[in-house]
Amino acid sequence: MKIALAQLNYTIADIVGNKEKIIVALNKAKESGAELVVFSELSICAYSPDDLLDYKHFVEECVEAVKEIAKHALGITIILGSPTFNDGKHGRKLYNSACILQDGVIKEIVNKTLLPTYDIFNEARYFEENTVFKTIEINGKTIAVTICEDLWFEMDRFNYLGNPLEELINNKPDFLINISASPFNINKKKERFKVLQNNCLRYSIPLVYVNQTGVHTDIVFDGNSMVIDKNGRLILECEGFKEDFKIFETDTAYDEIAFYEKESTELMHDALVYGIQNFFNKMGFSKAILGSSGGIDSAVVQALASRAIGAENVKAVLMPSDFSSEGSVVDARKLSENLGNSYEILPISNVFESFGTALKPLFEGLEFGLAEENIQARSRAVLLMAISNKFGHILLNTSNKSEMSVGYTTLYGDMCGSLSVMGDVYKTDVYKLARFINKDEEVIPNSIIDKAPSAELRPNQKDSDSLPDYSELDQILEMYIDQQKGLAEIVNSGFESSLVKRIIGMVNRNEYKRFQAPPIIRVSSKAFGRGRQIPLVSKW
Amino acid sequence: MKIALAQLNYTIADIVGNKEKIIVALNKAKESGAELVVFSELSICAYSPDDLLDYKHFVEECVEAVKEIAKHALGITIILGSPTFNDGKHGRKLYNSACILQDGVIKEIVNKTLLPTYDIFNEARYFEENTVFKTIEINGKTIAVTICEDLWFEMDRFNYLGNPLEELINNKPDFLINISASPFNINKKKERFKVLQNNCLRYSIPLVYVNQTGVHTDIVFDGNSMVIDKNGRLILECEGFKEDFKIFETDTAYDEIAFYEKESTELMHDALVYGIQNFFNKMGFSKAILGSSGGIDSAVVQALASRAIGAENVKAVLMPSDFSSEGSVVDARKLSENLGNSYEILPISNVFESFGTALKPLFEGLEFGLAEENIQARSRAVLLMAISNKFGHILLNTSNKSEMSVGYTTLYGDMCGSLSVMGDVYKTDVYKLARFINKDEEVIPNSIIDKAPSAELRPNQKDSDSLPDYSELDQILEMYIDQQKGLAEIVNSGFESSLVKRIIGMVNRNEYKRFQAPPIIRVSSKAFGRGRQIPLVSKW
Repeated sequence: MKIALAQLNYTIADIVGNKEKIIVALNKAKESGAELVVFSELSICAYSPDDLLDYKHFVEECVEAVKEIAKHALGITIILGSPTFNDGKHGRKLYNSACILQDGVIKEIVNKTLLPTYDIFNEARYFEENTVFKTIEINGKTIAVTICEDLWFEMDRFNYLGNPLEELINNKPDFLINISASPFNINKKKERFKVLQNNCLRYSIPLVYVNQTGVHTDIVFDGNSMVIDKNGRLILECEGFKEDFKIFETDTAYDEIAFYEKESTELMHDALVYGIQNFFNKMGFSKAILGSSGGIDSAVVQALASRAIGAENVKAVLMPSDFSSEGSVVDARKLSENLGNSYEILPISNVFESFGTALKPLFEGLEFGLAEENIQARSRAVLLMAISNKFGHILLNTSNKSEMSVGYTTLYGDMCGSLSVMGDVYKTDVYKLARFINKDEEVIPNSIIDKAPSAELRPNQKDSDSLPDYSELDQILEMYIDQQKGLAEIVNSGFESSLVKRIIGMVNRNEYKRFQAPPIIRVSSKAFGRGRQIPLVSKW
Repeated sequence: MKIALAQLNYTIADIVGNKEKIIVALNKAKESGAELVVFSELSICAYSPDDLLDYKHFVEECVEAVKEIAKHALGITIILGSPTFNDGKHGRKLYNSACILQDGVIKEIVNKTLLPTYDIFNEARYFEENTVFKTIEINGKTIAVTICEDLWFEMDRFNYLGNPLEELINNKPDFLINISASPFNINKKKERFKVLQNNCLRYSIPLVYVNQTGVHTDIVFDGNSMVIDKNGRLILECEGFKEDFKIFETDTAYDEIAFYEKESTELMHDALVYGIQNFFNKMGFSKAILGSSGGIDSAVVQALASRAIGAENVKAVLMPSDFSSEGSVVDARKLSENLGNSYEILPISNVFESFGTALKPLFEGLEFGLAEENIQARSRAVLLMAISNKFGHILLNTSNKSEMSVGYTTLYGDMCGSLSVMGDVYKTDVYKLARFINKDEEVIPNSIIDKAPSAELRPNQKDSDSLPDYSELDQILEMYIDQQKGLAEIVNSGFESSLVKRIIGMVNRNEYKRFQAPPIIRVSSKAFGRGRQIPLVSKW
């Protein structure tokens, strides 16, 4: 049997656009002589439409579109994902379904059993759990169709009550199909392959696995669809971070493909570039703007944006104050020249002074402090947003995960932006990204990489005045935020108790800033944003 | 049997503080001769601690605190709420439990069966569902202990697979206890009473219902704990929006209390005042600041804040521009005088001009437009945040739900603030609040209520230049946002198709602004924020 794996990049709620994309791919499958073409989970509306699923007509439109696609299911079977209505008297209103289209109609519907509801997943909010375990027949083959998490019964961190495969396997299926929307993180490809391989080995069954690719605001989907044989050997693979289309023949002997994953900095780089690209393309934006401070964070974002949407579409704005070092302006200018970006230099001294004058009735005689530091960061934001409003450039946020964690950022200042490119990248990884970007030539001036990090909001300020060394800080943050360890566990792994306490305190106190942060491209397994919901008013 | 209903205002994650509060109340119950004292759902950590539940040591500390409280369970039975560990091999790691404390120990644990996972609720993210239905015995009485949603099997909008009461009733309990964290909205008290009453009537059983009171950032809990007899008559009631403590005697004859709920504007007023109060008290803040434009939104927020934290703690800042009418400043000044607030007048003309000068290299020769309007709103935000940073005042946001819906707001401008007081109040309701505040005397100058709404960001601007009439706009918004109706349904109820389309388009396009909005005090059944999760990048 010839099976086409259609790994596509859908747009959320673009039911018409997704339908057309699906039809193009299924025609290609037909031309290739495929008997079956497989699309990913919720392919008709992209994963995940979130509360649009609460709108009845949204789901109706999805189902209607699937029916239209079904008309093309002549001489070929189509498996795709759609929300469908639960017509039973009880339970949540919807199912997360795999629709099997044959002979011009929706022939079968298989619903998802294991509904992930943790981190960025919210499926129990919308979907009822499947309890009917059936296999389907296509051209004489018995196939067990599953949806994403259905193959993830055995996870360390999360356990479901039952394993749908234990039921399905009773029908002795010839192979497994899994339609997925499995999000990317730095370690995901390896983890995912192991989980899928374990299923093939345990049940001695081949697996055809189709994942979606593309980025939906903050959540990156790599793709990396694949076929694993019944001996757990990887025998066919789609590419990551792009659309792909592959034909698999069930009766052909395939050589094993060695499992490969890029080095983690390269992977992060590619995911962030893909994230920026998708954000701009799907929103219909073309031009980006960012504040270029001469520091490493904005330099890396500027380089990533240039790779994502083209150097000619990225504008850097240098906004020196009286506290900016001469070197910063020189470095920032050099960076834009290296990248081929247009740049503007708009000094903020006069604006800063005018705020001082306006506030004189209240501030007269008081010392320079946090308020004055923040006025600078916020004045820059006003300038950037004004240019954005005037010319339609989209402001990119340049904060990193370390400063977002401890609140070493100015709300409504450097925290502004439509998209946070590096809010899930710790400072130590920002350096690695800079070196990766420079691997062939000095794109980011070495002076930017080498200088001590500084916000330059008061004379001779250094990050190290307020923060511990980033190498130590990032390790503690990673344990507290990503691994969700507590004080005692972190201290036990070799850090000073007072330091850990101080850092945890900073993270907790700054929840209010992150509450108003832009969406952050997710590259770790625990990013700020929808996957981490911490109460704002609390005593923790 | 004497039963104490302890309706308390807990703080999220303040395990020690909540424990102490519980001990004070249980001692009071002992002194009153009660045999049983009942606290609300998750009382030990307050509802809801959200992802703090992912931290193992957080749950361990909760369980430890419950054990300490149990030591006081001598001569009295205590029922309180806590997360507990699911020690089974499968299923989610935690239960949402009612702990029954007797003879100095945790005698029984009853787990929650129906786990709400919709709107602001996320329980399937953390908790496994109960499947063991048992009643408990206290001094010869058989009691069915349930937790909040367990009594909400029969809702229109959401259906569970089974009703735990159908199981529990087989043991012929003498009465029902329900420990709750049932959030407030304008229609909730009536809806809640009906649901609870239906349970009493269906099973001919009395109910002792204990709800938490207090506000957790955005989510308001009214309290309104109660006892309903087996004939569905309300016979005992705690007050709303405050802590309360009542004794119920099972063998005493009670007269029926007529169901009463305040008129909706008064109710909204009280909920918002309670929301501001709780935010400040729980965060340890005392002083608020806000921009006073002379318009109705900021006037109402200023009045509400004065009632919540005291007029002496509220500072108004008047920041007129060249486009501000003379009347605005006069009105704003009068308002502060009426309320007894301190105020400052800080004109923004010079700041605005300095931005113009800074941007001259880019903007020269271009027309005044949105960018310039936004510079004004953002300059005001910079001034307010500077005063906030300098003196520790907390900035209150003054946006209303109508403008938040259609994006008639400036991100990083008037959208700034630590707490949005009226982001869940439509403009037509803002007028009602103003009139309610003025019911005894003219607190808000009538000229503020009477004038046509204007952002005053360009000459002679009126809201009606860009927006339909608020009375029409709000009806359409309410159908689209609160009732989740689609275009066709809204048009069918009598609105012009092109108008509805335009408004829906505005709502959808402005998701990105709301993504970065402050937390909003929730008074409706569908507020912006955690209860409404709409994709940002989408084609809808």
